[in-house]
Order: sequence, then C-alpha cells, then structure tokens
Amino acid sequence: MAKQLSGAGLRGQVAGKTALSTVGQTGSGLTYRGYDIKELANKCQFEEVAYLILKGKLPNQQELDSYKAKLQTLRGLPQELKDVLERIPKDAHPMDVLRTGCSMLGNLETETSFEQQQEVTDRMLACFPSIICYWYRYSHDGVRIDVETDNDSIGSHFLQMLHGNKPSELHEQVMHVSLILYAEHEFNASTFTARVCASTLSDMHSCVTGAIGSLRGPLHGGANEAAMDMIEKFNSPDHAEEEMMGMLARKEKIMGFGHAIYSESDPRNEIIKQWSEKLAKDVGDEVLYPVSVRCEEVMWREKKLFCNADFFHASAYNFMGIPTKLFTPIFVMSRLTGWAAHVMEQRADNRIIRPSAEYTGEDLRTVTPIAERG
Amino acid sequence: MAKQLSGAGLRGQVAGKTALSTVGQTGSGLTYRGYDIKELANKCQFEEVAYLILKGKLPNQQELDSYKAKLQTLRGLPQELKDVLERIPKDAHPMDVLRTGCSMLGNLETETSFEQQQEVTDRMLACFPSIICYWYRYSHDGVRIDVETDNDSIGSHFLQMLHGNKPSELHEQVMHVSLILYAEHEFNASTFTARVCASTLSDMHSCVTGAIGSLRGPLHGGANEAAMDMIEKFNSPDHAEEEMMGMLARKEKIMGFGHAIYSESDPRNEIIKQWSEKLAKDVGDEVLYPVSVRCEEVMWREKKLFCNADFFHASAYNFMGIPTKLFTPIFVMSRLTGWAAHVMEQRADNRIIRPSAEYTGEDLRTVTPIAERG
Repeated sequence: MAKQLSGAGLRGQVAGKTALSTVGQTGSGLTYRGYDIKELANKCQFEEVAYLILKGKLPNQQELDSYKAKLQTLRGLPQELKDVLERIPKDAHPMDVLRTGCSMLGNLETETSFEQQQEVTDRMLACFPSIICYWYRYSHDGVRIDVETDNDSIGSHFLQMLHGNKPSELHEQVMHVSLILYAEHEFNASTFTARVCASTLSDMHSCVTGAIGSLRGPLHGGANEAAMDMIEKFNSPDHAEEEMMGMLARKEKIMGFGHAIYSESDPRNEIIKQWSEKLAKDVGDEVLYPVSVRCEEVMWREKKLFCNADFFHASAYNFMGIPTKLFTPIFVMSRLTGWAAHVMEQRADNRIIRPSAEYTGEDLRTVTPIAERG
Repeated sequence: MAKQLSGAGLRGQVAGKTALSTVGQTGSGLTYRGYDIKELANKCQFEEVAYLILKGKLPNQQELDSYKAKLQTLRGLPQELKDVLERIPKDAHPMDVLRTGCSMLGNLETETSFEQQQEVTDRMLACFPSIICYWYRYSHDGVRIDVETDNDSIGSHFLQMLHGNKPSELHEQVMHVSLILYAEHEFNASTFTARVCASTLSDMHSCVTGAIGSLRGPLHGGANEAAMDMIEKFNSPDHAEEEMMGMLARKEKIMGFGHAIYSESDPRNEIIKQWSEKLAKDVGDEVLYPVSVRCEEVMWREKKLFCNADFFHASAYNFMGIPTKLFTPIFVMSRLTGWAAHVMEQRADNRIIRPSAEYTGEDLRTVTPIAERG
C-alpha cells in the first residue's frame, strides 16, 4: 500500500536532496550554497551568483571576467527563432513567448548529451533576455532590435534592449540585486517541475520549458505583476489604506504578502525595499513608494502578513520603466540558474519521480453496449 | 522539520487524489474510471475512451458521433503555427516539435479562463496529429499536406496524413486500440509534471507542454522506439536469442520490459501483442513478430521480466509503416487525454505542489572578497 501523506501539495514532505539552497531554516533565512542571500546581494554581481549556483564556487576575478565575456558572445538569436517570435501576437502572454522561445531553441540547438549541460545553460542564460526583448520590441514597437549590445551584464543588457539606451549605474546595480534575489529557492513548484522532467532523463530545454510553464501560474510567478496592478491604482498612502481595508473586509486576495515556507519574514524583502527607496528618490517619486510602505504597514497590522520578495519588486521595476507584463519574464531570466542547477543535481543522482495517488473514483464496472447507454 | 520519505523518486508515496485510473491494484490491472482496460480496448473506439476520461462517462451513440464530428472540425492549423513548424529542421527530435507546436498554439489560442479547459483540450486532441504530420511531411518530403482529411477517427486521420492514403480497417482498428492503451496511467512522471504545473493555476498549454517534455525522456516515453531499434537488428528468433543473451551477459539495458508499478505483468501487453500478430499475418511478416515473441520468452526465462505496453507496440507500429521516430508522438496524441483530465482534477481541488528538500550542501559561510578568491 502506498503511504498516506499528511499535507496536500506535498507540503513539508522531503521529495529529494539538494546542496543548492536552504529556505527558512532559521525561520527567515535564505542561503545559496551556504552563502547568506543578504551578503550575496550586497557584494556580488548576478553573473557571480549564477556561476556559484551553476558551477559550485564563487569565481575569482579572472573567472568572472571570462564568464561574463563568454555570456556576451552567446546573446544572438538564430533567424528561425526570430521568425517564430515575429509570429507571436502583441497580446500574447509574455511567459508563453519565453516558453515557446525556449522550446524552439531546443529544436535548433538540441542538447544531445548531458556533457553539454553547462554550455546549454549558459546559452539560455545569455539569450533569454534577447528572446523576450526581441518579441516585445517587434510586437509593440515594430522594430527588429539588435540583441547583441556592448553591455557586459545580463540585467543591464536587458534594460538596454528594452529602452534603446544604456541604463544608469543605479539601474544596473538594482538589476544585479533583483536577479540575485530571484535566482534560486529550493523545491518551489517550477523548480520541482524541472526536476520531475529531469528525472525521466529528458533534455535541458524540456526541463526549463516546463519550469517556465509552472512559473507562469498566478500562485507562483505572477505575484509581482499582481502587486503592481494593485498599487498603481492608489494615489496616496491614505487612499491605499482605505482601499486595502476594503479589500480585506471583502476577503479579496492581496498578492505579494506571506509565503508558503517563510513564517516570519522574507529575507529578500528588506533588500529590494532599500533599492526601491533609492530608485524612488532617483526618479522623484512621491506616490508609489510611500503607497507601498503603507500597504506593508496595513498588512502587518491587520493580518500579521509580511511582504515577500515580490512586493517591493513591483515599484522597483516600475521606477526603472519596465512594463508590468515583463516582470515575470525577468524572474525567468534569473531563476533559470536555479532550475538548471537542480536539473544537473537530479541527473547526478537520479531515480524517476513517480509518486502514487489515492484512488477516489468508481469501483470496477462493466462497459454497457453503446446502444444501451443513457 | 520536513518528514523524511523512505523511497527516492517519491516511489509508493501518495502525492494526491485521483478518480481517473487505478494501476496495479490487483498486481496487474489497469482501469480507467472503473472500466478494465481490456474491456475498453475490445469494445470501444479511442474517441469513446477520450470522452470517458475527459468528461466522466462513456458517451451514447449520439454523443460519440457529435464528439467525433466536433473533433474533425478542429484539425486545422493557424498559418503562424505552420510557419513555425516549417522552421524546425528535419533532424529535430519529434517530441521537441510537438512541445514547440503545443507551446506556440498557447500563444495563438490562449486559455484565458478555466471554463475553456474542455474546449482547449478538444482542440489539442484534434490538432496534435496535424502538428506532427505537417512538420514530418514538410521537413522529410517537402510537401505542405492538407491536415483536414475526411477521416473521422484520430488514429486513422494520423495514418492518412502520414501515408497520403486512407488506411485499412485493420490499421484503423489497431490505432484505436493503441491510443486507448496509452491514454491514462495515474501519476506517471509526465502526468505528475502536468499536475505540478496545474497546481500553480497555470494554463492548459503550459501543463501539456511540460508533460510532453517529460514524456520525451528515455526513462519514460521512448521505450517503444528503443525496442524497435533493438528488434530490427535481429534477422531471426535464434539470432535474437543469441544477441539478447550477450546483452544480458554484458548487463546492457533492454527496453520494453518490466515496470515501475506492475510486478507480474503489464495488462496492456497481451492486448497489443494480439494485434501485432494480426498485423504480422496481414503483411506476411516472418521475422519481426517471431523475433519479438522470442525476446519475450528470453526475458521471462532469464530475468522473470515481462513485456510492458511498449514492446509489442514497436512491431505493431512498424507493420503499419510508421517511422520509428514518430512512436513517442503517438503516445502524446493519446496520453494528452490523461494529462488534461489530471489538470482538470488538480484545478478542482488545488493546493500548490511545493515539497521540501533534504539539504546536503555547505554550512553557512561568508563571501571572500573577489580579489582574495582562489
């Protein structure tokens, strides 16, 4: 007989091993390969952390330089992939675009041996920003952008393709922090999707394509977009408080607060909140940031719910001029590192993930001849 | 603390509920919604069984007729999707093609509300054969086929697009049986992928795209192709026995035998084996079928391993002139019913699937300044 688990959604059940991260081990912490997220976000560039997650150690200066230089050479898109992106309508869901772009790339540059796994991952890391920006600018602005800029960091390259000019140092820095914060988070649903797929010994593009599809779900990746949709409706902190009290009274779902694993706070929040404040000063904002702070106060006072990583990401991205619909694709550009590292880990010590189900259906019955069916 | 599970790969662990099927409850049985697989395969058409799995009951004659007629109207491909398929090279993995075709369809015909889930599924059921055959015939034969035949069943329509002429009654019948046998199998890895994705409340195309990626893995969907690659090398039963004894002595992996859940036999084997025998007589085969039977005897005698659903599918598909690389895509055309029904079931009683991991990595450490790293 299959063993009955106590929690739905496999909550609290160990489904495998990982050396990549710890989530909430002290109630609020997050570590990547033993390093605290706050230290990584303060001291590192995203490419350093990607290297850490994918290759197991922090790079020295030479390794980092050559890794960034290598990624820079891998940004171009094959013409067939551009053709595909040009056929995706403007009103498509940007996560569907990335999912399709990743899947198409798997046809053109198939991973034919697991020995290619690092190369295939670096390629995706370098070209996902190209995929999303190429489609966005073509479908929205009618231009075929050059996806090979001279910008040497992934986040800054993304902003440059999006806006057509070199981003400020502050924006580049915030992109590093943001991509670091989202890079890895243990067995969340999209990562677990990638691991289930990897457990059949399928290829890297299949694993990542599946993970993108899971991150697309509103219970997973869409929270920063939902937070933005909410806060941009408020024109002052008092207005925000009034509206939120109404939403709470009507028991409406408010996105960007609380977490399935963290119980006291999300360690990523205080980091991105600081940067959102700096960006607010930089653009002279007097509404969105104070509104966000008030939302945080109200949710804590009324519900003892804390902001998760997504909430202050909404205002931060907005201050950098990023369209709301591209928030979750940025999450993909970052989390790809975690997904790929989990795939590699699953492959290194694999057993196919094939759980059992509790049967709740009909007892055995016989087929009534079709002429006699009701 | 997270609970430690006994088996890797969640083997034997209940990860949720289902009313769709039972696998191996008496050691060898398989039921769909309470009906034994043998009875369904003997008495039903595939569209009847798809209806059963997706809508919960066996259709009466009128319901079946109108369901088949409806599916027939949904076979056409949008020009943008054809454009995508024409850009996928001949040597691409056919599962990558289907994965990309499904994902692209999600951009063009997005599921924007769960109320559309049956419609979206019917559309996929109707047009997946079109996707795979359009790409196959275009990339291999240079022709743009008409994907809207007058054939009223999915399996027969597939053969007609592939071969360019109407299949025999025997072939139509075998396709019904084959698609029925592969339609549903509880929490296998691809279905579980679909459910994990569904648990984020993502859309149907994401769930199915992810499932295709998992089925692509050689530990899951590729067994019938691997069986074919093996048996076509043997020119007689004695030759097969000699070669297999060598493979066993060298401890090589032999595909198409044994099963993660079934312990005594796979109930699907005796069914497809009968049909493979009929097809062998029909084409006057005196090699492939006797070779397959000898392989079965040797594996049972030497290893007490039985043929699973995949083994005699290899010869059966081969007798119908189906290229080996399209075997797993046929599996998709069928299993889509199970995947979609599981997605609907997950949505109806959802909690996000987010297990925990056992941490095996580095203890907490501090970031060494980059200039001091080794």
